[in-house]
Amino acid sequence: MQNQPFNSLNRRVYLDNNATTFPSARLREKWGEILEVSGNASSVHQEGRVPKTILRDARKKIAELLSCSPLEIIFNSGASEGNSSVFNSVFQSAFPKRNEFLISSVEHPSVAKVADSLKARGAVIHIIPVNRDGKIDLEFIKKTVSEKTALVSVMYANNETGAIHPIKEITEIAKAAGALMHTDCVQMMGKCENTFKELGVDYATFSAHKFYSLKGTGFVYIKSSAPWSPLIFGSQERARRGGTENITGIAALNIVLDEVANISDKIRHMTKLRDLFEKTVQEKISGVSVTAKNSPRVCNTSSLVIDGVDGDTLLMSLDLKGFSVSTGAACSSGSPEPSPVLLSMGLTRAEAQSSLRVSMGWTNTEEEVLYFIETLSEVTAKLRAMGEKEKKDANVC
Amino acid sequence: MQNQPFNSLNRRVYLDNNATTFPSARLREKWGEILEVSGNASSVHQEGRVPKTILRDARKKIAELLSCSPLEIIFNSGASEGNSSVFNSVFQSAFPKRNEFLISSVEHPSVAKVADSLKARGAVIHIIPVNRDGKIDLEFIKKTVSEKTALVSVMYANNETGAIHPIKEITEIAKAAGALMHTDCVQMMGKCENTFKELGVDYATFSAHKFYSLKGTGFVYIKSSAPWSPLIFGSQERARRGGTENITGIAALNIVLDEVANISDKIRHMTKLRDLFEKTVQEKISGVSVTAKNSPRVCNTSSLVIDGVDGDTLLMSLDLKGFSVSTGAACSSGSPEPSPVLLSMGLTRAEAQSSLRVSMGWTNTEEEVLYFIETLSEVTAKLRAMGEKEKKDANVC
Repeated sequence: MQNQPFNSLNRRVYLDNNATTFPSARLREKWGEILEVSGNASSVHQEGRVPKTILRDARKKIAELLSCSPLEIIFNSGASEGNSSVFNSVFQSAFPKRNEFLISSVEHPSVAKVADSLKARGAVIHIIPVNRDGKIDLEFIKKTVSEKTALVSVMYANNETGAIHPIKEITEIAKAAGALMHTDCVQMMGKCENTFKELGVDYATFSAHKFYSLKGTGFVYIKSSAPWSPLIFGSQERARRGGTENITGIAALNIVLDEVANISDKIRHMTKLRDLFEKTVQEKISGVSVTAKNSPRVCNTSSLVIDGVDGDTLLMSLDLKGFSVSTGAACSSGSPEPSPVLLSMGLTRAEAQSSLRVSMGWTNTEEEVLYFIETLSEVTAKLRAMGEKEKKDANVC
Repeated sequence: MQNQPFNSLNRRVYLDNNATTFPSARLREKWGEILEVSGNASSVHQEGRVPKTILRDARKKIAELLSCSPLEIIFNSGASEGNSSVFNSVFQSAFPKRNEFLISSVEHPSVAKVADSLKARGAVIHIIPVNRDGKIDLEFIKKTVSEKTALVSVMYANNETGAIHPIKEITEIAKAAGALMHTDCVQMMGKCENTFKELGVDYATFSAHKFYSLKGTGFVYIKSSAPWSPLIFGSQERARRGGTENITGIAALNIVLDEVANISDKIRHMTKLRDLFEKTVQEKISGVSVTAKNSPRVCNTSSLVIDGVDGDTLLMSLDLKGFSVSTGAACSSGSPEPSPVLLSMGLTRAEAQSSLRVSMGWTNTEEEVLYFIETLSEVTAKLRAMGEKEKKDANVC
């Protein structure tokens, strides 16, 4: 199961940290301890008290990071569950009085799909446009929210472009209409300074695997005044989310949260790498643009359009050379269609098909970035030459 | 996080394996490998291919164990999610034509609560009685099912008493009325011979942590002909269950499934321990009865009524002496109320309050069982003497 070395760095270079991250160095060190935390947190004997303490510690750390009460945090299996739970809760409490939902055109499929599912139950879904600079249409939101609006849901930062949305302003618009506000914060933690409290949202959803912890673990922030109905029934989490707590995942999260609490140096590091990458890649390769470059963005994400190159072919060529990047969200990878997010932002099909996402992580190095650009430059030149040849051959035929 | 030794065996003795189990020896050995499986199974590069292969392997092994198609298995966070998903799916497909649900009186809270939640949406819930011998009332089911019945849901084996229900017969009754059939199989895997296929159910729900793997991982069997709607929306699991797959949990499960496939020796071992325990405890301690003793039972569970002793006090005294047992389900522990399951079976409040559940695991030993009985005998004598003294003191006052 070890990664095989392919490139001159003698190791694979992972630049797909928005899809998922790998366990942090500290979590790796403490992996043996994690194995020992295996009791049922609901048991009253000693084997239950150890996980119960870890649950409490992790919940407290999250509450400190988000400046909220520990009671406003529920552990779950990740942000997809969180997103389905939020929409379900709001629909149940607001329908039929308020039956309208606003979501942005660039939401994660877990948001877009659950919103869509509510149509059959009488909900009306409004899609908020986002332009190719990554700017969300605030005027559309102002014009569309009304006394019929149940929820406005806009992601904090987009997973494909890294563009950050003005959640605070959107929350104010939603609140003025008496609507609830949700933000999918999957791309926030581990790569942004902690300004959560300022956002003022009613709900926020998080996944631990996006910030160097394990998959299958997440949490929801639910403002104490916001309605909530369980999606998964049971006794745990004060009957708000059933199921024996994933204590392996929560113990891992408890370790990584200490690293997230000291994020400034990591942000500086990733910003430096990203800026170096974007500057150098445009110097070394012609016909490269960075989508949503002029929008406020998270520090680690570059969404490139590389003229005349098919993103999927590029991705596979880079994979063979030891580099992991993506053409869009992992969730829709393998699909022959270009990214719906980029199309919705107004990129042409050709542009979307020539897109490549590079997302830095805590441990990437300058050396990796420069070596990646070198390889990208070679592969791009080769693919462009092949494309030219195909065109010529087609003309000959 | 290490357990502290308390007893003469110089280690804690864990006899609460129905609440949760600890990672198997093989999983412990391979713990380092599990850490290396951290990619996103939806990624198309190498870091995604490794988890994708593990997902496929684990799904195939489950399908072999259950004699079904791999496409009939969906991974999720555990049986509580599974149970909520099944009820939600059936309700959505059957309502309003069929709006009646039958569940047994001894179901897990995750089943009882989701069923109850559907009442507000127009469902009618019928509770099937179970007597103190652990026998479910088949006549009640026959009389109650009709063309209005959407689903019959009866757990394979009860978590508190170990009593096994005649699922095959119940399925036949449900099918004859055109209803769907679900069984919560949480207490089956890891302690029963593989006879799943004979049951003929439409849905079955499983949790990996009940059979020596990790918490936060489970799966649902969905017969290919049975309706399904996602509870958690997203692209994964063919859009039937969203959320990046918990590959840590699934890689662990993939290891433990090999041990589950060779279960006969383990069943013989646990049966021997359970029989030794029940025989010896009744020889050594007066006023002890075994609930549902004459019912078919899983091989590892003894639900005792110990006259004149408060179960919670007993549990705490045993915990201090290094033994972990429970008074009922972990999910409702800490509640001052006696077990609703035992009350529903017709035990008196006094009997239910004097109940103790002992559930053996793969690695418990005869020595542990005999030492446990010795300690139980001492503690019981002491608590009974204290009870007698309190009664006398009360009379003096």
